[in-house]
Amino acid sequence: MNLEAAIKDFHAHAEKVKMYNSAMAVMYFDAATVAPKGGIADRAKRSGFFAAQLFDLITGDKMKELLAALSPHEGRLDPITAGMYRMAKKNYDKHVKVPAAKFRAFRELVTKAQNVWEDARKDDDFAAFAPYLKDIIAASKEMVEYRRIDDAPAYDYLLDDYEEGMTMQIYDEYFGKVRDAIVPLLKGVVESTKKIDKSIVQKPVSIEAQRKIAHYIAGMIGYDHNRGYICESVHPFCNSSSRDDVRITTRYNENDFLSSLFTILHECGHAIYEQSTGDDIAQTMLSRGVSMGIHESQSRFYENVIGRSRGFWEFVTDELKTYLPDAYKDMTAEQFYEAANYAAPSLIRVEADELTYSLHIMIRYEIERMIFTQDIDVMDLPAIWNKKYEEYLGITPPNNRLGVLQDVHWSGGMFGYFPTYSLGSAYAAQFLAYMKRGLDFDGLVKKGEFAAITAWLTDKIHRHGSIYTPHDLVDKIAGEQLNADYYVSYLQEKFGGLYRIGM
Amino acid sequence: MNLEAAIKDFHAHAEKVKMYNSAMAVMYFDAATVAPKGGIADRAKRSGFFAAQLFDLITGDKMKELLAALSPHEGRLDPITAGMYRMAKKNYDKHVKVPAAKFRAFRELVTKAQNVWEDARKDDDFAAFAPYLKDIIAASKEMVEYRRIDDAPAYDYLLDDYEEGMTMQIYDEYFGKVRDAIVPLLKGVVESTKKIDKSIVQKPVSIEAQRKIAHYIAGMIGYDHNRGYICESVHPFCNSSSRDDVRITTRYNENDFLSSLFTILHECGHAIYEQSTGDDIAQTMLSRGVSMGIHESQSRFYENVIGRSRGFWEFVTDELKTYLPDAYKDMTAEQFYEAANYAAPSLIRVEADELTYSLHIMIRYEIERMIFTQDIDVMDLPAIWNKKYEEYLGITPPNNRLGVLQDVHWSGGMFGYFPTYSLGSAYAAQFLAYMKRGLDFDGLVKKGEFAAITAWLTDKIHRHGSIYTPHDLVDKIAGEQLNADYYVSYLQEKFGGLYRIGM
Repeated sequence: MNLEAAIKDFHAHAEKVKMYNSAMAVMYFDAATVAPKGGIADRAKRSGFFAAQLFDLITGDKMKELLAALSPHEGRLDPITAGMYRMAKKNYDKHVKVPAAKFRAFRELVTKAQNVWEDARKDDDFAAFAPYLKDIIAASKEMVEYRRIDDAPAYDYLLDDYEEGMTMQIYDEYFGKVRDAIVPLLKGVVESTKKIDKSIVQKPVSIEAQRKIAHYIAGMIGYDHNRGYICESVHPFCNSSSRDDVRITTRYNENDFLSSLFTILHECGHAIYEQSTGDDIAQTMLSRGVSMGIHESQSRFYENVIGRSRGFWEFVTDELKTYLPDAYKDMTAEQFYEAANYAAPSLIRVEADELTYSLHIMIRYEIERMIFTQDIDVMDLPAIWNKKYEEYLGITPPNNRLGVLQDVHWSGGMFGYFPTYSLGSAYAAQFLAYMKRGLDFDGLVKKGEFAAITAWLTDKIHRHGSIYTPHDLVDKIAGEQLNADYYVSYLQEKFGGLYRIGM
Repeated sequence: MNLEAAIKDFHAHAEKVKMYNSAMAVMYFDAATVAPKGGIADRAKRSGFFAAQLFDLITGDKMKELLAALSPHEGRLDPITAGMYRMAKKNYDKHVKVPAAKFRAFRELVTKAQNVWEDARKDDDFAAFAPYLKDIIAASKEMVEYRRIDDAPAYDYLLDDYEEGMTMQIYDEYFGKVRDAIVPLLKGVVESTKKIDKSIVQKPVSIEAQRKIAHYIAGMIGYDHNRGYICESVHPFCNSSSRDDVRITTRYNENDFLSSLFTILHECGHAIYEQSTGDDIAQTMLSRGVSMGIHESQSRFYENVIGRSRGFWEFVTDELKTYLPDAYKDMTAEQFYEAANYAAPSLIRVEADELTYSLHIMIRYEIERMIFTQDIDVMDLPAIWNKKYEEYLGITPPNNRLGVLQDVHWSGGMFGYFPTYSLGSAYAAQFLAYMKRGLDFDGLVKKGEFAAITAWLTDKIHRHGSIYTPHDLVDKIAGEQLNADYYVSYLQEKFGGLYRIGM
């Protein structure tokens, strides 16, 4: 096959991959929102069928042949084809080297384990889950051995799976800085004389009103309703089947309207990223956010950097009150701002505030690191977990439901995933610092001129989709890599000021 | 390939077909309900891609090979495999004999024509649409010639496409009886001293209340909410992606709650049919209603035979009032019954009442018959149309928007489709007569015991899916074929009584 023909063929094959991904996104959205309970067995069968079709496209003989044809020319491909080649090759290598039977056994193990975990969590029975966790750890280690191309530690392979280029070395340094800065900062918050009363934003707001608020907030922040749809699901998510069809979901709690408001901002960050892919790649498989860490940086940017800023509340308070019941009529922007930034030690990651969130992640990273580099007994994990919560957050989970059993990730074999959540916050703070070099961020937010902010993010990040590695993408913005200093300064400045620490 | 292997292979291939059909059903539902406008281009591309994948499965070399392997054994296949073979063979022959280029050109023609028709209808400009209609007619005739296996008239091929086994000979006899009975019956209604006031059921009912009514009515009539979902769309439809996921949509009009109530009953008829497929075929491609006529017989049975019966209103009125505003509090069951059966000549098919509906269909059948058996000028169609409305319904469309331009079907090349709508009503009346031989239908309805009625329909019709031809299915119930006498008697008895004709 000559190069031109190979490229053409490769693009056609990649288009098929995109079509299947797109169809699966629609079916996933349907299943998570409106599909009836009774159809679950047939849906599982169908989704297995399409996953197998897709697996065949990305790991089959055709892909093998195409990658082999392109490989000698790798350095001379146009940027789009090069990006697609990189992505396809990584996917191919990751899946093909593990024997199909091992892969299937692993899928079956984690499917079973997730059910066991659900019950174990409900019953607060870690011992019931432990043998499954042990098997998943062993299988995860074994699967890395099949893929091994160098002598890097197994956990580095897993970290790279969720964020290309990441290693323990990088994360150790990163979390080291986070620990050194946030643990004392949190101590300062706890001991501060400044107290924030969260109850003032917990007066009831009807679901109907919250739906209108969601629509308003999303449109105002830059989400394109004409190429999107907002509805409800048990767990909020962002779902993209094409650049022009990017949906978000949320859930509503009558007594906590801010929870949904921030969920909307969070999912809008993901969605605006997907909606802003450049025309040149919109129809290719590169038309999606490049990595979990970069994706999370966008959701955290809209949720926290913008949404939990003082300027945002100065801009939004009057308009927001037109949707809120009378009980909110005397609230000031400053009161909303403070309530939105209430910080305190807590046990549950998904309910954690902006300040403590990365401590929750750090604990999980440290434990995963132990699991893959030391010979630890899984039955010791609850104690290890609780000790770390005591050490970093100053509180001890009273049971494993509120401790080691709270997250689904390990039962799904998703080791290496957690740290990307924290990366998101760190990158968001880093991008903010870069942005401020050229834009009056605070001034824009205060005036509600979010379009200029999104334009900056689109230019530097969104439009590129997956064309560059996350490493190269970040490097292109300011000639620098992940640097926790920005994140640390951001938190110190914000929470130091709010809680009057050292003043 | 030996027979056993061929059967196994055939089932595996048919399972793939089912998977693609199921995925396409989900994507269709999504597109018709919540998908954002902005994503329309990517959706069109994706649906073209999957249609092509499916086309390849049902007409490609693999299917050809399988059909050839099974063909010598056709008479000795088990009933399920035989049903699947029949269905697959018919589909294969229908699509493969027409050259792909002709098929594509036809698709393009009707896509264009539908846009032209939309504008023509809006502008009341038949002349703009006429050249497209002429081309579609010519292309439809030409495509039949490719498929021809005998010297039957071209229109018989088209009639058979929409309802297997149907011919002009059968429909001529059928519509002859319909014409002879309904035209004078309608005259009797028009001249009757009995007048029905429809406005008493047109007092406003909020959409929220109508949603609750829809949920109540559907569940009460036998729709399984656990394996379904009800929502809104521009045009109501029933959508099945598996036996255990059958959804219906409706639309609400504040000033006509009965319209939506009957739409729900209608779609429930389709849905209960799909939800009641037998276990033996639920996982096969036979798990769907056998034909348009039989499917419509079920929707009309629930909508008209049950829903527009006096007993239904005797049962439902009290409960229904708990959802209705105070303005309805003095309504009696008899008043609801009468309003639900208001009959009068009208111009628009989709708004026609139970009595006149088949006259609208008959007019379309007679015109299609002329188109395919006589050499008529399409420019004469408006005059032909109007003359028939004058003759059968006693009213003349004031323009073509309310006349020959009202339906989408011809612009889509769907000749032969219309008569199946009328078949539905006729079969429904026929099944009612058979049912009454063993069940106290009126007594059951009056007591709200719909389960016994559905059980009869499930036993005779629903559970069989597409395993038999419609002809064989009807024959199995009472050893008889389509017989308009039942339908005619049903209408005469009902509307003769209600409008006191000849009394």
